Amino acid sequence: MSDSPGAALRDLREQKPLIHNITNYVVMNETANAILAIGALPVMAHAPEEVEELAAAAGALVLNIGTLSRPWIYAMLLAGKTANEAGVAVVLDPVGAGATTLRTDTAKRILEEVDVAVLRGNAAEVAALAGLEAKISGVEAIGVGAGAATVARTAATAFGVVASVTGPVDHVSDGERTLAVANGDPLLATITGSGCMSTALTGCFVAVRADAPLDGAAFALAAIGVAGEDAAAEAKGPGTFHALLYDALYALTPDRLDARVNIELA
Amino acid sequence: MSDSPGAALRDLREQKPLIHNITNYVVMNETANAILAIGALPVMAHAPEEVEELAAAAGALVLNIGTLSRPWIYAMLLAGKTANEAGVAVVLDPVGAGATTLRTDTAKRILEEVDVAVLRGNAAEVAALAGLEAKISGVEAIGVGAGAATVARTAATAFGVVASVTGPVDHVSDGERTLAVANGDPLLATITGSGCMSTALTGCFVAVRADAPLDGAAFALAAIGVAGEDAAAEAKGPGTFHALLYDALYALTPDRLDARVNIELA
Amino acid sequence: MSDSPGAALRDLREQKPLIHNITNYVVMNETANAILAIGALPVMAHAPEEVEELAAAAGALVLNIGTLSRPWIYAMLLAGKTANEAGVAVVLDPVGAGATTLRTDTAKRILEEVDVAVLRGNAAEVAALAGLEAKISGVEAIGVGAGAATVARTAATAFGVVASVTGPVDHVSDGERTLAVANGDPLLATITGSGCMSTALTGCFVAVRADAPLDGAAFALAAIGVAGEDAAAEAKGPGTFHALLYDALYALTPDRLDARVNIELA
Repeated sequence: MSDSPGAALRDLREQKPLIHNITNYVVMNETANAILAIGALPVMAHAPEEVEELAAAAGALVLNIGTLSRPWIYAMLLAGKTANEAGVAVVLDPVGAGATTLRTDTAKRILEEVDVAVLRGNAAEVAALAGLEAKISGVEAIGVGAGAATVARTAATAFGVVASVTGPVDHVSDGERTLAVANGDPLLATITGSGCMSTALTGCFVAVRADAPLDGAAFALAAIGVAGEDAAAEAKGPGTFHALLYDALYALTPDRLDARVNIELA
Repeated sequence: MSDSPGAALRDLREQKPLIHNITNYVVMNETANAILAIGALPVMAHAPEEVEELAAAAGALVLNIGTLSRPWIYAMLLAGKTANEAGVAVVLDPVGAGATTLRTDTAKRILEEVDVAVLRGNAAEVAALAGLEAKISGVEAIGVGAGAATVARTAATAFGVVASVTGPVDHVSDGERTLAVANGDPLLATITGSGCMSTALTGCFVAVRADAPLDGAAFALAAIGVAGEDAAAEAKGPGTFHALLYDALYALTPDRLDARVNIELA
Repeated sequence: MSDSPGAALRDLREQKPLIHNITNYVVMNETANAILAIGALPVMAHAPEEVEELAAAAGALVLNIGTLSRPWIYAMLLAGKTANEAGVAVVLDPVGAGATTLRTDTAKRILEEVDVAVLRGNAAEVAALAGLEAKISGVEAIGVGAGAATVARTAATAFGVVASVTGPVDHVSDGERTLAVANGDPLLATITGSGCMSTALTGCFVAVRADAPLDGAAFALAAIGVAGEDAAAEAKGPGTFHALLYDALYALTPDRLDARVNIELA
């Protein structure tokens, strides 16, 4: 790559893009803090009266279906269509797709009605949407029939998106090219919302790589992966890891990120 | 007891039960993290379109009225009745009962319409529901006329539940047998949501002790109590305690829990 | 001043006022913990069925428009009017005013229909409301034409409130007297919700200085400022700072606060 995660991080910190999130109640604080720590500006807003105004002005729009209800679905579709018209990249996190009909159907509906740039989920969520075998318990992936690279490639082709599938190794695909991102630490799976933070950071990086969403999505996972490694080095468990993760995102430099990134063609 | 908190913790970590929470906005992240740290799987969902699907598939359903509104009350009743039909244990946290008519009435309505396995609250909340003298300021117990053991026993008999009353010493009663749990640390009272976390953990333990909810409820309080003691040993105040509490829940082993538990017949 | 922040903190810890918050989803946990750490009692409640009961019984009512929707606006107006009738001080945080029409209009409507004691925001939010030039990106102040002291004075006069404008140096004005509070640390700007915490603490201090809201508002900013300085001394970044901020608020003593406070006439 001529481009690099570090170069994108440098752009992000200079441009400080506004990231408009319509997300779930569980992780609002955590994703806002992750966005701030990496160097962008978060805003959370879900009222139909204001989502169009914010989505059109944002660097990226992040939709996350983790605690859905009808009015929020309406707001997501409204914001998504506005973002499309304004040329603002849309990132979708299909939290719990495959676990309930409402979540599966809503994720599919957003993928149909909105031009989504990046679909970021765990393997079971993305597999369920792509019609592959998957087992999910609530919002946790339990098992998937196909390999994660296949899940990413299949979903990317099926929905015309970049599919960003996180797991022990992450796989990001646009259907033709698939990247494996091997940064991260098992402690990331011990806190709620680390997937949602990955999605929020994907919004940040895609905001500065709008014409290369595959790279943007992979760079975001590298960034949280490296920060996770740094945080884990000092953590005593999930709670201290969680606090140190923001420290690590904030302390991450472009050079350090480029020196530590582990992205390969899958 | 032939059974022990450690044995239940071992079962919990093996079975990884799904805990469906319809809870308040304040503690969604914190209770999800507590459930993950102890070894179970949390899901937060409140839409009428999906609560039946999740409640029926869960190991336990946790209802918490901390930031009520009409649509959420409807969802709680719907999920509660579904859980009952599916044989899934229901745990209720009557946050702020006694402080407002809406909260008192809603807690009573849930107790009437849903077969609640465990009612977990502070002494003032549970006393108010049981018709005993109580003083509450917002969601904090200020004073109760009767002793905590009497409050627990009276509520258990009145509502046909296990009443789990937390305080400096916790009291858990099924109306006939009352257990006093003397683990914990005063720092637990300095962070918001420690009561709600106790309720969430009660869901986890009751999921693996469905036929012995009195034991399950007491084991849960012992677990958060011992973790609180461990966290307090290193904490410098409420903020570091909060982070260390998740570390301690995650690090808690069955043997350590059994060695430290302090449960007696009251 | 014959009065002092330390004296107010002493009163606060003795009286433990109940602070009723109708606030945004992002910071509910964080503001509740800040209120507990300083020594008051938080309650979060937004249902029309209970906000009047709680607002009338509270020491102060805090309204925060950070994640607005129609039902919440209705609840805020209802609670605000009830607080006014009961003589309970109302504090308003106009999060994102100037960024969307909904937020600007809602903040103005609350200022018109409710007798607000203290308006606490960043310079861009308060400037936008007062009709001064301001640039805001989402909820972050980017630039303001006038100086912060002018913004505070102008807003105070325009709305008949104490205007509390936070920034590198905070400015609090009742239109006649303007105080500059020079406590704090840049790390406060790296976590989401530090402004909302300032507003919540303003509620705590105004609850014990109802007849001197200018002093109460300045004392609150001094308290979070000194706590921020203490937390920053040990923090490694935004995450550890965030945890240590609660420790510092909890550990803050009246004497320490008075020794460290930096309030001057502007």
